[in-house]
Formats: sequence, structure tokens, C-alpha cells
Amino acid sequence: MLFTRTLDCLLKSRKTVTALHYSARNFAVTLSKMSEIEKKFVLPKRLEGAKRVVEYIQLALEHKPLNLGQGFPDFPPPKYVTDALSQVANGDNFMIHQYTRGFGHPRIVAALSKLYSKLLGREIKGQTEILTTLGAYEALFSTITGHVDVGDEVIIIEPFFDCYEPMVKYAGGVPRFIPLRMKSGGSKVCTSADWVLDKDELENLFNAKTKAIILNTPNNPLGKVFTEKELNQIADLCKKWNVLCISDEVYEWIVYEPNRHIRIATLPGMWERTITIGSAGKTFSVTGWKLGWAIGPENLMVNLQMIHQNSVYTGVTPIQEAVAIAFETELQRLGQDECYFVSISRELLSKRDYMAKFLQDVGMKPIIPEGRLLYDSRLVSSGSEKDKYKDYRFTKWMTKNVGLQGIPPTAFYSTPNKHLAENLVRYCFIKKDENLQGAAEILRKWKSNKN
Amino acid sequence: MLFTRTLDCLLKSRKTVTALHYSARNFAVTLSKMSEIEKKFVLPKRLEGAKRVVEYIQLALEHKPLNLGQGFPDFPPPKYVTDALSQVANGDNFMIHQYTRGFGHPRIVAALSKLYSKLLGREIKGQTEILTTLGAYEALFSTITGHVDVGDEVIIIEPFFDCYEPMVKYAGGVPRFIPLRMKSGGSKVCTSADWVLDKDELENLFNAKTKAIILNTPNNPLGKVFTEKELNQIADLCKKWNVLCISDEVYEWIVYEPNRHIRIATLPGMWERTITIGSAGKTFSVTGWKLGWAIGPENLMVNLQMIHQNSVYTGVTPIQEAVAIAFETELQRLGQDECYFVSISRELLSKRDYMAKFLQDVGMKPIIPEGRLLYDSRLVSSGSEKDKYKDYRFTKWMTKNVGLQGIPPTAFYSTPNKHLAENLVRYCFIKKDENLQGAAEILRKWKSNKN
Ligand SMILES: Cc1ncc(COP(=O)(O)O)c(C=O)c1O
Ligand SMILES: Cc1ncc(COP(=O)(O)O)c(C=O)c1O
Repeated sequence: MLFTRTLDCLLKSRKTVTALHYSARNFAVTLSKMSEIEKKFVLPKRLEGAKRVVEYIQLALEHKPLNLGQGFPDFPPPKYVTDALSQVANGDNFMIHQYTRGFGHPRIVAALSKLYSKLLGREIKGQTEILTTLGAYEALFSTITGHVDVGDEVIIIEPFFDCYEPMVKYAGGVPRFIPLRMKSGGSKVCTSADWVLDKDELENLFNAKTKAIILNTPNNPLGKVFTEKELNQIADLCKKWNVLCISDEVYEWIVYEPNRHIRIATLPGMWERTITIGSAGKTFSVTGWKLGWAIGPENLMVNLQMIHQNSVYTGVTPIQEAVAIAFETELQRLGQDECYFVSISRELLSKRDYMAKFLQDVGMKPIIPEGRLLYDSRLVSSGSEKDKYKDYRFTKWMTKNVGLQGIPPTAFYSTPNKHLAENLVRYCFIKKDENLQGAAEILRKWKSNKN
Repeated sequence: MLFTRTLDCLLKSRKTVTALHYSARNFAVTLSKMSEIEKKFVLPKRLEGAKRVVEYIQLALEHKPLNLGQGFPDFPPPKYVTDALSQVANGDNFMIHQYTRGFGHPRIVAALSKLYSKLLGREIKGQTEILTTLGAYEALFSTITGHVDVGDEVIIIEPFFDCYEPMVKYAGGVPRFIPLRMKSGGSKVCTSADWVLDKDELENLFNAKTKAIILNTPNNPLGKVFTEKELNQIADLCKKWNVLCISDEVYEWIVYEPNRHIRIATLPGMWERTITIGSAGKTFSVTGWKLGWAIGPENLMVNLQMIHQNSVYTGVTPIQEAVAIAFETELQRLGQDECYFVSISRELLSKRDYMAKFLQDVGMKPIIPEGRLLYDSRLVSSGSEKDKYKDYRFTKWMTKNVGLQGIPPTAFYSTPNKHLAENLVRYCFIKKDENLQGAAEILRKWKSNKN
């Protein structure tokens, strides 16, 4: 997602414009030079906190590197899923092109309720406990702005998907960050399980002002899959301080054996205080479909409905119908080998291991992810770029000089903690085998030139 | 849209729950009975203004009336449009299922820029002056919440599409209402042109606190198409008071001869202060596709981008691609007889006139719409229901006893002005001819039973 964002910038070269636009507001001198229209229509004060400066200058178009930056597949989604959309679009039921129920199209709500009743081990009531949204992104927006009030504290675990912070600020809340810290692993191969929360640090963050904690498991970008013990620690603090758990589980199906995805809503006393968020885009490898959902108890969902109703009102009917069909198919083969939720991780596992190997071959030290599709790999060289953070310098330099594109992980940290990821780079391996082989080749060449 | 909203209610019978939920907040006594979780997770204060009470209890499911309430067609959309989606979904370009540019998929942005450059008579820069959104609804949300600051006044012309008011309040703004008033037309047949703004009343509403005015032409629900003279009056006041014009033109293509849709952004000095909003759902009769756009000068668009980026981030790629294809087709035959933008109004015109006739036959006095798809028709009987407003009583009674479903137009007014629409009912005629004939039959029978 970060990447799309950066691409935007490049495509429109708005970045500088926007930056100017904002900085203009800090100088009365400059302000006086603005026209009356410009002055009156600056951004409302309450939105200043939502500013989002995309720092990474994307060089992809210029340098055409092999791109392992984008967090989505470069191969086709499952055919039966795209066929479903195609058939829905010109099928007999032409009313499928008109408005549907605002809080969720009945057929997808029914499918989600069936699936999550199994996954969460309780009956999920479609009418009141599920909201479908325009991507998990809108589910996060509805949850955060629907619950966070001015001055409320929200705990965010780092590294984090980059929209959490501006959404909390937009609602008037105060983000409180806590990083996953790497246990010194010596020389052995490091995995995302080596990245852990410090128990005392976490405990100290909770207080009477804490409204919510945002959990993301499997985590983007690290691939960490939180263990039952870790989740219980978080759950206990949520219960002690009466805190809402916003559980972003969009990568729920991308977990590598022997790791297991545990839904925090299934832990004792947690259903009543958890909103679980999912994404059809991630589940079926169709990120462009932008269908998400939030699931939770009725009294917590009402706040989300209020935001949804006043911002987009209703979702896309044919997309919801097609995803319903996809879920109905998977429901019949849940847990079986040919179930997409099983096969996708199996397929990705071999890609993961292939990438781990070629990164090690060139002297990089990968952090093997337990889940998800990305890779963090400790840097070898930082190049000659002038950015503040080493990972930015490295990725830019690599794009320009070596022809391989990665993403700088400090983008997933708050300013005080960016140093924790400075020595890393993020490569995505949900890519065609030939492109992974190409990447291996590029790195090998680079290494032999260095030596 | 109102109807979908009411349907929601019925489908989930959430209305009462929600009402209780909200009223609970007004009583400390009740509050003390709520659990700790419920107390802590009530709606943030800033959202109270966005409350949306759906008052109309939908009896459709129970009584199965012939439904002229829903504002969308009951016949198929143009086949080439749905075919486009079907082909996009299983075409060769499988990357069309992944994320696209956040502010608008390049192909649809290019098509919109071509089309609106013609319509607005100036070059529209796709990169900076267009934002595609999840329906016109999200365009309204991004515009209103992106521009309205706490305490800003926003002028809303009544009757109005019902989301304007809560969106303004959600942003902390103060809605200031002004109704279109019916010139006493004597006994002649009345048209939506007889509904006009009082010039002095409008002038008196503008002041230093006025941030924006929301214009909706052709108007929902009235079908009024604002004339150039009327638009100039509004434009002059916008310029005098440095006010933003939010121009909701989702029905731009549904205008009946000899009326002409005029885009306020084309009037002198208005481009720089207008955001023009459109909808693919309305344009191509596919309301379920939820693709909208906002067009305006770059400095005004930045505020919308900020909201869009923090609430949904990016739109649905295949839907944007399919609509781009539809626009490319229409661009080639713009203004010609077979252009859908021309043929749709021609088709609807005969439906409009058919309905006007049968309403008059039973003694109703239709207000002939100059644009759009709906009809307002003065009531004949108010039935025996107990609602506060006559139109609610009438429509409920008709649904239960006569089997014909309409929408009460007071829903489109602020409380002090609801009385202006109490004697009306809204019937939608974007329906199959056989259903319009059915409606005529029902009304004729009803009338002969009465006599
Ligand atoms: C952790 C996380 N949450 C949410 C999202 C948004 O998902 P969607 O595309 O369904 O809006 C992403 C997308 O990259 C993500 O990585
Ligand atoms: C006047 C008006 N504006 C905006 C909308 C919303 O359009 P969309 O479905 O594209 O979000 C509607 C829908 O009924 C409408 O009537």
C-alpha cells in the first residue's frame, strides 16, 4: 500500500506541491501572499493532524527496476474468483448493479457470518455484528474515528501499517507507540518471532485515558504472528483497563506452518471488546476490489455504522456478490488441501524460502516471516544517497544503481523509533518465480561486482 | 437512496435499537445501568451531530406493494456497460484486480478529463483537478469534511439529498437552510420551475461565516433544473462573500427538453470556487457500482484528497476500468442520438408524461419535473396513520391499504420547513412500463372504490 501511495506521488508529482501547500501555512508572511480564496480554503485545523507526508520519492518509472516493493501479486488471482465477478456482471440478475443494503449486501453478510461463526467459535449475527466496508482501510477508518474521542489515547504497536497514526490523529486521539524489539539472536537465522513486546513497557502504556490498542497479526511489514501467550498479555491489559482492541487481521490466511493465526476475539472476555477487521483484497489476492469488513458486538458496531453511513453509505454490489460466491466456494472445502486459504500459504512458503536463501547467499540476513508476504532483510550497504535514514538511502541507491526496488521500513515507525528499522529493507515475495529468480540474479551480480 | 436506508432498517430492525442507544445517552440514570464497556464506548461527542434517524418504517417486505419508492431502475443497465465490467473481470490484463492510483485510476481520470474539459470549457488536469471516489456520496463527504471547519456556516437549499445535513454537522459546521418556495401557480399544471429561491432570503443568509453553499441541480427530489439566471444569482453571492460552491450534479444527464443543465463552474469567476460532483451510478444507471468524482481547482482538491487518503485510500480498480470504457464509448458519440446521455432522458420523458397523466386522472396534481427521475404529486388523502407528518401517514397508509409505495418528501427538509412538503408524495418513474401501468391501474381502482 505504501508503494501505491508513493507511486501516486510520482505519477502526479504532487508531493512537492503538497509540501509547499502545507508549509505555506506556517508562515504568516507567505499566507499574506495567498489569494483570498486560498486563504479561506486552507485545510480545517482539525485535519492538520491527519497530514500524511509521503517521503519516499519513487524512482520506479525513471529507473524501471525489478520491483519487489509493491505488496501485491504480479500473477493472476484465482480464476474462479475473477470468473465470479465476470459472471455476476453479465448474469441474469441485473438488479445486482443497483444499490444494496448499506451495512452489507445480504449474500456476503450471510457468507461472512457462516465463516466467522466457525472461526470465532460463536454465532455471529449478520444483521448487527458485521459491517462490510470499502476495503479493510475503510473498516479501520470507521472503527478508529467511530470510537476515538478527543484526547483518547490509542496504543499502536510498531512497525505499523501507515494509516493508523493519521486516522487516530484525525479523530483527535493521541497515538502512543510501542515497538516490537528484536531479541539479540546472535548469529543464528532470525525470524519475526524474535521481535517481541517488552512486557513492562506495554504495561506502562496502559492508563485511564487508553481507549484502544491496534493489533496487527500477522503483522505488516514484519510478518510476525503473535502467539497465544503474547495475545493473552495484551488481552489481560485490555480487560484490566477496559480498552477496545482493534484487531487488523487482513493477512489471517497467510501464515506459515507451524505457526497458527489466533484471533484475539476468541480469547476469554475479548469478544465484547474486539473489532476484528478483514479484507477480501488480501484474502483472495485481489487488492483492487477494496472490500473489507469489521466484526464485533452490536454495541461497538453502532459507532462504525454511523461513520460508514455518513461517509460512503453503501458498498459496491457486484463486488460484494462476487466475493460472496468466492467465500461460498471456500466454505465447502474449508481446511482441505485445495482450499485457497490453505494453498496460498503453501505456495508462498516456497517463495519465502527461495528468497531467504538468495538473500543469505549475497550476505544479507533475512528476518524469516512467520506470516504474510514480505521480507525484512538487514542491509549490507547504504549507498550514497543523502536521506536522513539509512534504509531510504539504501533503497534509492539500489533502485538507481542495481535495478532492484525495495521499500524502506522506517516508514512504518514513529519518528522517535525509526532508528530501530534503519538497517532493514522490505522485499515482497508474492511475485512470479521468474521475477524472484531475476531478483536473485541481480543481487548475485551486484555482489560479485563488489568483491 | 432514502429507500435503501429505510430498507436497511427493516432488514435489521436496528432502528429501535439505535434510537434506544442514543436516547440512553441523555439520561444519567440509564447510563448508570450500562455496563462499563457500554459506557466507555458510546459515540464520541463530535459525532452526535451526525446522528441519522431513519424515521420511515418500511413496510415493503410485509405488504409487498408495487414499489415506486426506490430511486433506481428496475430494468437492466445498458448492456455495453455491464459487458465492459464482465470483460474487464476476466480479460488478459489481470493486474486490473490489484491496487491502482489512489486519487483515481489513470484510465478513468483520462476519460473524465477529456469529457469535462468539453463540458466545462477549459482544460481539466487529470493529475490535480480530479478525484475519483466511492460514489458521489464519498465525494460529498470528502468535500464537506475537507473544507468545513468548526463553526463554519453552510447553506443548504431545501429539499435536499439527506446526507448533506449530517455531513456538515459531523465536520462541526452549522447548516443554514433555505427552501425552494412554490410560486402559487393557480390551477394550471405545476412544474418544478415553479419552485424558486426568494432572492432576499438567499442574500440574507450569506455572511462572513459562510464557508460553502450546496447546490443540487437537477435537484433531488424535486427535479428542478436551475436556470442560468438563478445560478448567476447564487454565483454572485458566492463571489461577493468568497464562498465555496459544492455543486452536486449527479443527475446532470437527466434533463428534459427544452430545459438545459448548466454547470455553475462554467459561469464567470466560478471555476476557482466550485467543486463539481458526479456519479457513474446515476450516469449509467448502475447505482450499485458506487463510483463518483469531484472536479475542481487544485488548491480546493487538496483538502478532498486528504480526507480520501485517510478514509478509503483508493477506489475499486475493475469498476473504474469498466466505467472508463463506458465513457470512452460515449465520448465518441457525444451529443448524438444514440449517446446514452441523450437517449436516457428521451426514454424517461415518455415515462414522465405517462405518469403525469395517470396521476392527474385520479385527481392528483403532479409537479412535472424538468430533470431527474422522480415525481412529486400533491396528496389526495392522508390515510389513518398516526405519524406527525401527513406525507408519512399517506405513504404508509397507501402501502398497507392500496398496495402502492411512495416516499414521504418531508424527509428532504429540515424540521422547521417540513410543513412545506407535507402535502406531497414522491413517486419514481425510472421503472419498467409494465410497472408504471400497474401503478396506474392500482390508483384507478383505488379512486373508483373511493367514489
Ligand atoms: C495491515 C493492513 N491493514 C489494512 C490494509 C488495507 O486493506 P484493504 O486494501 O482491504 O483496504 C492493508 C493494505 O496494505 C494492510 O497492510
Ligand atoms: C443528489 C444526490 N447526490 C448524491 C447521491 C449519491 O450518489 P452515489 O450513489 O454515486 O454515491 C445521490 C444518490 O441518491 C443523490 O440523489
